[in-house]
Amino acid sequence: MPHRQVYFFGGGQADGRAEMKNLLGGKGANLAQMTNLGVPVPAGFTISTKVCTHYMESGGAFPEALEGEVGAAIAKVEQAMGTKFGDAENPLLFSVRSGARVSMPGMMDTVLNIGLNEKTVAGLVAETRDERFVYDSYRRLIQMYAEVVMGLDIDEFHALLDARKKEKGVYHDLGLDADDLKELVRQFKSKVRELSGKSFPDDPHDQLWGAIRAVFQSWNIPRAVSYRRLNDIADDWGTAVNVQAMVFGNMGEGSATGVAFTRDPATGERVFYGEYLPNAQGEDVVSGVRTPHPINIAQKNEGDDESLEEAMPKIYGELEAIREKLERHYTDTQDIEFTIQGGKLWMLQTRTGKRTAEAAVRIAVEMEHEGLIDRKTAVLRVEPDQIEQLLHKRLDPAATYELLAKGLPASPGAAVGRVVFTAEDAVSWAEDADKTKHRTILVREETSPEDIDGMNAAQGFLTARGGMTSHAAVVARGMGKCCIAGAGDLKIDYRARAFSVGKRTVKEGDWLTLNGSTGEVILGQIGTVDPEMSGNFATLMEWADEFRQLGVRTNADNPEDSARARSFGAEGIGLCRTEHMFFGEERIRHIRGMIMATDEKERRAALEKLLPFQREDFEGILDAMKGLPVTIRLLDPPLHEFVPHSDKEVEELAKELGKDPQAMKERAANLRESNPMLGHRGCRLGVTYPEVYEMQARAIFEAACRLTKRGVNVKPEVMIPLVGEPKELSILRELVERVAKEVITSEKVAVDVRIGTMIEIPRAALVAEEIAEHADFFSFGTNDLTQMTYGYSRDDAGVFLKDYIKKGVLRKDPFQSLDQRGVGQLVKMAVEKGRLAKPDIHLGICGEHGGDPESINFCHHAGLDYVSCSPYRVPVARLAAAHAVLKARMKAFH
Amino acid sequence: MPHRQVYFFGGGQADGRAEMKNLLGGKGANLAQMTNLGVPVPAGFTISTKVCTHYMESGGAFPEALEGEVGAAIAKVEQAMGTKFGDAENPLLFSVRSGARVSMPGMMDTVLNIGLNEKTVAGLVAETRDERFVYDSYRRLIQMYAEVVMGLDIDEFHALLDARKKEKGVYHDLGLDADDLKELVRQFKSKVRELSGKSFPDDPHDQLWGAIRAVFQSWNIPRAVSYRRLNDIADDWGTAVNVQAMVFGNMGEGSATGVAFTRDPATGERVFYGEYLPNAQGEDVVSGVRTPHPINIAQKNEGDDESLEEAMPKIYGELEAIREKLERHYTDTQDIEFTIQGGKLWMLQTRTGKRTAEAAVRIAVEMEHEGLIDRKTAVLRVEPDQIEQLLHKRLDPAATYELLAKGLPASPGAAVGRVVFTAEDAVSWAEDADKTKHRTILVREETSPEDIDGMNAAQGFLTARGGMTSHAAVVARGMGKCCIAGAGDLKIDYRARAFSVGKRTVKEGDWLTLNGSTGEVILGQIGTVDPEMSGNFATLMEWADEFRQLGVRTNADNPEDSARARSFGAEGIGLCRTEHMFFGEERIRHIRGMIMATDEKERRAALEKLLPFQREDFEGILDAMKGLPVTIRLLDPPLHEFVPHSDKEVEELAKELGKDPQAMKERAANLRESNPMLGHRGCRLGVTYPEVYEMQARAIFEAACRLTKRGVNVKPEVMIPLVGEPKELSILRELVERVAKEVITSEKVAVDVRIGTMIEIPRAALVAEEIAEHADFFSFGTNDLTQMTYGYSRDDAGVFLKDYIKKGVLRKDPFQSLDQRGVGQLVKMAVEKGRLAKPDIHLGICGEHGGDPESINFCHHAGLDYVSCSPYRVPVARLAAAHAVLKARMKAFH
Repeated sequence: MPHRQVYFFGGGQADGRAEMKNLLGGKGANLAQMTNLGVPVPAGFTISTKVCTHYMESGGAFPEALEGEVGAAIAKVEQAMGTKFGDAENPLLFSVRSGARVSMPGMMDTVLNIGLNEKTVAGLVAETRDERFVYDSYRRLIQMYAEVVMGLDIDEFHALLDARKKEKGVYHDLGLDADDLKELVRQFKSKVRELSGKSFPDDPHDQLWGAIRAVFQSWNIPRAVSYRRLNDIADDWGTAVNVQAMVFGNMGEGSATGVAFTRDPATGERVFYGEYLPNAQGEDVVSGVRTPHPINIAQKNEGDDESLEEAMPKIYGELEAIREKLERHYTDTQDIEFTIQGGKLWMLQTRTGKRTAEAAVRIAVEMEHEGLIDRKTAVLRVEPDQIEQLLHKRLDPAATYELLAKGLPASPGAAVGRVVFTAEDAVSWAEDADKTKHRTILVREETSPEDIDGMNAAQGFLTARGGMTSHAAVVARGMGKCCIAGAGDLKIDYRARAFSVGKRTVKEGDWLTLNGSTGEVILGQIGTVDPEMSGNFATLMEWADEFRQLGVRTNADNPEDSARARSFGAEGIGLCRTEHMFFGEERIRHIRGMIMATDEKERRAALEKLLPFQREDFEGILDAMKGLPVTIRLLDPPLHEFVPHSDKEVEELAKELGKDPQAMKERAANLRESNPMLGHRGCRLGVTYPEVYEMQARAIFEAACRLTKRGVNVKPEVMIPLVGEPKELSILRELVERVAKEVITSEKVAVDVRIGTMIEIPRAALVAEEIAEHADFFSFGTNDLTQMTYGYSRDDAGVFLKDYIKKGVLRKDPFQSLDQRGVGQLVKMAVEKGRLAKPDIHLGICGEHGGDPESINFCHHAGLDYVSCSPYRVPVARLAAAHAVLKARMKAFH
Repeated sequence: MPHRQVYFFGGGQADGRAEMKNLLGGKGANLAQMTNLGVPVPAGFTISTKVCTHYMESGGAFPEALEGEVGAAIAKVEQAMGTKFGDAENPLLFSVRSGARVSMPGMMDTVLNIGLNEKTVAGLVAETRDERFVYDSYRRLIQMYAEVVMGLDIDEFHALLDARKKEKGVYHDLGLDADDLKELVRQFKSKVRELSGKSFPDDPHDQLWGAIRAVFQSWNIPRAVSYRRLNDIADDWGTAVNVQAMVFGNMGEGSATGVAFTRDPATGERVFYGEYLPNAQGEDVVSGVRTPHPINIAQKNEGDDESLEEAMPKIYGELEAIREKLERHYTDTQDIEFTIQGGKLWMLQTRTGKRTAEAAVRIAVEMEHEGLIDRKTAVLRVEPDQIEQLLHKRLDPAATYELLAKGLPASPGAAVGRVVFTAEDAVSWAEDADKTKHRTILVREETSPEDIDGMNAAQGFLTARGGMTSHAAVVARGMGKCCIAGAGDLKIDYRARAFSVGKRTVKEGDWLTLNGSTGEVILGQIGTVDPEMSGNFATLMEWADEFRQLGVRTNADNPEDSARARSFGAEGIGLCRTEHMFFGEERIRHIRGMIMATDEKERRAALEKLLPFQREDFEGILDAMKGLPVTIRLLDPPLHEFVPHSDKEVEELAKELGKDPQAMKERAANLRESNPMLGHRGCRLGVTYPEVYEMQARAIFEAACRLTKRGVNVKPEVMIPLVGEPKELSILRELVERVAKEVITSEKVAVDVRIGTMIEIPRAALVAEEIAEHADFFSFGTNDLTQMTYGYSRDDAGVFLKDYIKKGVLRKDPFQSLDQRGVGQLVKMAVEKGRLAKPDIHLGICGEHGGDPESINFCHHAGLDYVSCSPYRVPVARLAAAHAVLKARMKAFH
């Protein structure tokens, strides 16, 4: 045992310090620290964690010297507070709380109001002139003590309380008066005797030691033990016990209680922000029975009650000084609780204040300007995941509403519109004479690439099926539109043009509001607020860029998205999907003609017609990204995605193309696949129908050459999808090189030809050294890689993934956060093998994971060169990439 | 250069030996060897490969001493043959052939009849008294020489030949007489002059040296170079040149030519088997213009011409002696060619004789008995892949037929029956009063588990879609029935109850014959022969078992298959699929009730009804395999496989189950998946609906306990499918253990509880060390593992796999032969990690690859404990496992 077992704090000085967390626990060290800072904290003392260890090891004995040290500490507290423990006139009451090295919220026990008995009760009544409050405190002590210290059944006491309320015909505890509570104290005491065979201890010292013992013992109650297991907390750390004088804000005039933030937690503005209630307990502020008053004049609105600044200017001045002191010490916004007892200010708690994304950014940047923190710290102060909301329209935070249903928050932001059930309706309503029909919410079982025009026209999408990476979700994030996916409670009846949730029915044309950041579906129109891109945000992003090593690109398929992403700081396009370009009206006709062709000649003729469209697409995108690399993925999805499904539609198509409807139906049926995900797609199409990739390569290099001639700097990179065998890539590389050479020769300008592949099939990672021989770059397609490594179809897995996370089979949805153990192993393997075969190979990731902070941290450590994500995630990725560097540095220093 | 450059052979002795392959090439060494054995070989000499190397390195120069050595060798040949090179009266002719270290069939050039010119032609005519033959030989010499040595366009010569035939109004070369050929010789010579500006060389020595030079140069012609690249043959090995005296079997009476096998290549019987033609050339035997005679009396049938044994008893005696000598020397059945020229026997070639499976087995076993070979060699002499045909009904080898279509040889054997298009028809036709309707061939786009009864009733299956591991193929192999899958030319019209191939239409009820070993679909009824399991076969299998280290189990789902596999030598069941048991009429009703249940209670009630059926199934199988382990896989496929697809069927089901049709349709629609392969199946069902696996575990252990009570030794092993996360297995292991304990406690008998998992998801291999902690065994499910590692759906990949193999992207179909580089890497990784975590973990494979010899070899080297395959592949696997051991030993010795 160390010499000292008990650490006093109070009256402006403490035996402990902030660094003594292991010995005093987090709370004890913090109380000591605040005291040392000169902040008025109710006096008290901490019994060290070593005593707990001794207690456990000795089978429940206290060290010899403890009693004496506690006695001495009590005397010091009495002196500091000007009260006396057990004194009838001027009683000192204690709270007894646990406090381990690491916070274990709610895991261990607390006893309040230690020191109350028949004698001290009278003194306290005299002092507070509030008999009801005092007896309520007393009955609470007995109740808590009976449960926590004596281990009696708490329900027996609740039953007595309930019986009393019933008898009095009141619903709330507040309906009981002082006499009722006096009677309850009597009943509680006899219940204690009845259940335990012992009397409730009247001696304050007995009460105190019982509570101390109970806190030590609570270290080993089952819920605390499980919590330690789950959070890697050692069993032998033990807990400290904090014994602290109680103060009351409801001791008449000159007493009050309040909570405050050192800066505005909503906007981050450097103003003192809070509220208080005169002559009240903390409970009263929280319960909403009384309306709190503003803390200062600055915050007062018309009709508000007197502020603390006006009512107690001196106290308010003290509080202001404490605010400065705490921010300076903790170098972060604090959330504080205070109580004023008989004209004396006491600080009960200070902790880091929660804040909105907007506030987080402003506080971090301003604190750096104020010299409170350095840039690294400022960057680390903002959570990457948080900032995406700054880029989207949001629901008015002040609005109240009723929830209709909940789905997955698939693409953030807010959308308000009228319900339509088909993409065609979304398009036609947008052009309706009735302008109220222009804003629509597209509600579907799930969306498909054919819905693209309707998705463009709608404000947001709501699907009953599909997950975070379903078609609707991916497209929405790309467009920056709001989407809620997989709202399984929706029963959609397309024929009736309505959907129902439980007994509620929503019809076509009804107004709906979506909160894509929470997944909440709301009936009616809720107000929204537009994003504000403050200068602080830009500043923070610049700082992040100073630290990060990973490049950040974007996934974009059109000039608008490309330009938007560039404005968000994207350093190139990591994934430009070419198939989304096929869905325009005229294009889809040609692509269908190509698919339905019966021979290569016919196929080539259809492709010839498609070529100008593709070239134009690529020109637009390469132009928008001028000077930055643009990775263009050649056709990836299976052909049947472009072909109509119903017999009727196929017949129409046959008429349009001038073909035999029967042959056409057969061809369409032949294209259908059992598992399209694992079917005839990606480079497999390129190998079997080389003319398709030839057309795409031609379009890319013709666009590149034309722009070059116009003086635009272009960096196209051709990406071959779904490679699993090195030979697939070597065949297609040869094809692309040949076409590029033809175009470059005929256009007579120089354009760099860079060709690479996606690593998205497990086998590709396994044989990466062979594939690297034919690749200038690898881009990890972690969506598909996750699907195949886990054997999960992302379109179908929603059904069991929820259950899997609930049952602890999975920690997180692997489509949202990269599975580092399994999929990550393949990524690392491919990085290693790829670099071994070709040291200068360029490596990136273009799966949805490229926008997930935890996954970005993995990519940084796996040694990738860049991540690519949807435009709205670009700032998130920039910040997360900086965090990865800074956190690794911090680790290295510790 | 070594001293000697030219190696003579002839007259009973040779300079070379069999071991000198590197120097003399395969053919040269073999000719020397035969000569040394005392076999009469036309004399000749071999110019060594070193000369070729010198020729290449020196840019086309011959070593100085070569001319002298060749001259000396020619003299020796003249002496041995009693003829003279370039002599007008008694000319010696030479053939000049290439001969590399390794056979490169057809890759390099040959020139025959070297030595013919105007002078020698006359002598040969006098000798043979066949002017037509001589001039035909002469025009062939000019033609071959012009092309091979002089590099002239062969088409010019063909044109002259064709013009002549046209002029004479004949179709065949044989229609031309001696005068025609004389004229052609004239024309050919002037054409040579015209094209090359040089005369055709008349000097036999010039001809010879030109031919030698041409052979050396042919080492570097493009097709030879590519062949070397593909077959790993070094460029600097070079080729030897074999110059050999020509002999003629058509030099009148006392001349003949023939081919023979030292044993019957069809049955393997030890009889001398062959045919010959008197006064004929080898060409005549092959062309079919004349009918060959039997070689001996034993083979004569009524009406056959005089045998060689009768016509030339002395020569026949010599041939018999040579037969003995060659078999003793080569210790294997030989395929020989001979020519008798003027009463003298010459052997032209001996090589290992091709044989049927039946013959291979008999020859191997009998040669061991005769002491010609040892057991290891006998076992290695039979190709594992070959022997499966011994277990199936086969098409009568004598039958001739016309091919209707071709598909994949998905399950071997033969089937004859009448076409039906639905499983229901197959069942009802089997019970029809018209007995000719009992045998049916089920023709479908593809089959599904619902067709199981119909598949049981039909003789064989023909599908238009699906690959070697499609449902139809897997079920067929399990049942030992014939199946042809993926016959893409079939256009099936279910409504018309007919299918068409090109312009041919086949209707319901038409007779069809399938050859599942070749994939041939034949219209009409072709005769078949039943399998004969000879004693030799059993003997060979026993010998294989002496050597192999891998265990061999079978994949079987019912007692019949189990018993059959056991009779084929299976040492247990490696995969018993439980879902196939669900398709009986009453069972499917309960399973559907289970699936359509709206809550757990209802689900449990349906499962309760299913339990007795499952228990009965397991009793049957465990009983059939008594004493041997039976690995039972819990439910694997997604639930929608058990649910009807059409609205009408769902309505009927609703009526049957007393449910709301609309709710039922919704439930059925909800079950549908985009990629069922990667959907809600396997252990994912077990985790979300634990009651299903509980029922199955209960059925297994109740069956095991009941059999144990009856004194039957049982070894059930419970296998959890589709595990990718260790926690899936730990949750389900706990479940199975709990149920097993309950059953064992209540039944009061001891049964071993062994629980393991499939490794069939890439992630499972990646985290195998964590999974091993919860597994007593791993069984590699290489079908699914291949699907996910490659990202190929086996139901859909047929479309591009053919193309991939054709284009060299894939060497083999990875569903037939394990992809050792990629999938194999995961297998090895899992073996290593699994054994590291649990050294005594038992490891097997239960994918289709378990029956593929090349894959079995891989499994042996990867350190697996056993392979499991369909019953009919069990003997194949036993033999392949022995080969793996013996080949590795051979490698170690070399």
